[in-house]
Amino acid sequence: MVLGLGTGSTAKHAVDRIGELLRLGKLKNIVGIPTSKKTQEQAISLGIPLSDLDHHSTIDLAIDGADEVDPHLNLVKGRGGSLLREKMVEGTCKKFICIVDESKLVKHLGGSGLAMPVEVVPFCWKFTANKLQNLFEDSGCVAKLRNDSKGKSFVTDNGNYIVDLYLKKDIGDLQVASDAILRIAGVVEHGMFLDMATTIIVAGELGITIKNK
Amino acid sequence: MVLGLGTGSTAKHAVDRIGELLRLGKLKNIVGIPTSKKTQEQAISLGIPLSDLDHHSTIDLAIDGADEVDPHLNLVKGRGGSLLREKMVEGTCKKFICIVDESKLVKHLGGSGLAMPVEVVPFCWKFTANKLQNLFEDSGCVAKLRNDSKGKSFVTDNGNYIVDLYLKKDIGDLQVASDAILRIAGVVEHGMFLDMATTIIVAGELGITIKNK
Repeated sequence: MVLGLGTGSTAKHAVDRIGELLRLGKLKNIVGIPTSKKTQEQAISLGIPLSDLDHHSTIDLAIDGADEVDPHLNLVKGRGGSLLREKMVEGTCKKFICIVDESKLVKHLGGSGLAMPVEVVPFCWKFTANKLQNLFEDSGCVAKLRNDSKGKSFVTDNGNYIVDLYLKKDIGDLQVASDAILRIAGVVEHGMFLDMATTIIVAGELGITIKNK
Repeated sequence: MVLGLGTGSTAKHAVDRIGELLRLGKLKNIVGIPTSKKTQEQAISLGIPLSDLDHHSTIDLAIDGADEVDPHLNLVKGRGGSLLREKMVEGTCKKFICIVDESKLVKHLGGSGLAMPVEVVPFCWKFTANKLQNLFEDSGCVAKLRNDSKGKSFVTDNGNYIVDLYLKKDIGDLQVASDAILRIAGVVEHGMFLDMATTIIVAGELGITIKNK
């Protein structure tokens, strides 16, 4: 089984557990495809056999977290900064299981008021950030460059920057919004994962809820 | 006047001439926005004052070459490898003049049989190249990674690779094709410049022809 390994605080637990099951012999014939350098390092330390998309263009199952989930199982991802590799891996999965706690459930994407990330090339990033902010002007969008913990520009695994969009209102048709973002020269990818998750596992105070597409 | 400075063999002559006119005092109050590191170096050597898109989000005029021009003034650009910065600059121009010789005129984009370039992130580029080739399977597409003169992967000014698409047939509606390319995670930008050129100057055996949008 070819398994996409997510990135972030939730995915970290899943990867740990996969490593444990492999060690105990309860899981066999697994090849992992990591979605970030960080997850790659974690998987190597756990002895999970790894490969990449160049060698496995179809993935059986991916497990990852998300920053927002809307009622149609569309996601916002990338607050951890790995949105591009996550989208490459999780966009080629037969099944994509997303694990969240109920605080991540939103009525519409952007609805948490927290960041909707867009990966952009560093060249003239302010110009690109302005274009993104103007695109969603009607939704009260504010675009900000993401900094790392040292106050410097956060750099992705692909050498790019992240512009975080903060939205006050719904941005309307998500596929239209997605295409409009991608048409801006300077944008590499955005953190909306539309029609990709096949199952959402929601951990709430009263237990686990499972939503299937 | 804010002037976008193109990249490539044709644009090089235009930049040289701008430098000369400045030196002779026949041109004044010019700020150039270069579309590549190469053009930036050329402009500096000629004493052309420079700025960037972060400081000038609107450009009065850009002058550049193109690899293909179709009857609707849509272009293929990027065989020189500078398509992303060219698109960022030339997409924000009031006027964009494109200078070509008549060998660049095609019935439809891709029609020369030469490369239609796509800038992709280096991470799992084979996976992305396969997706591109499959997207235009009906047009007989072959996708190849571009190499430099030393046989190594060509690296753009933005640290990415170029996948060149070779097409045997028309790819149909260009805006639909553009969106489909941009939706592939791993693609940064493509070399189709749709509805951007405002004037084409064509040098032919019998003289100069000017086509306006």
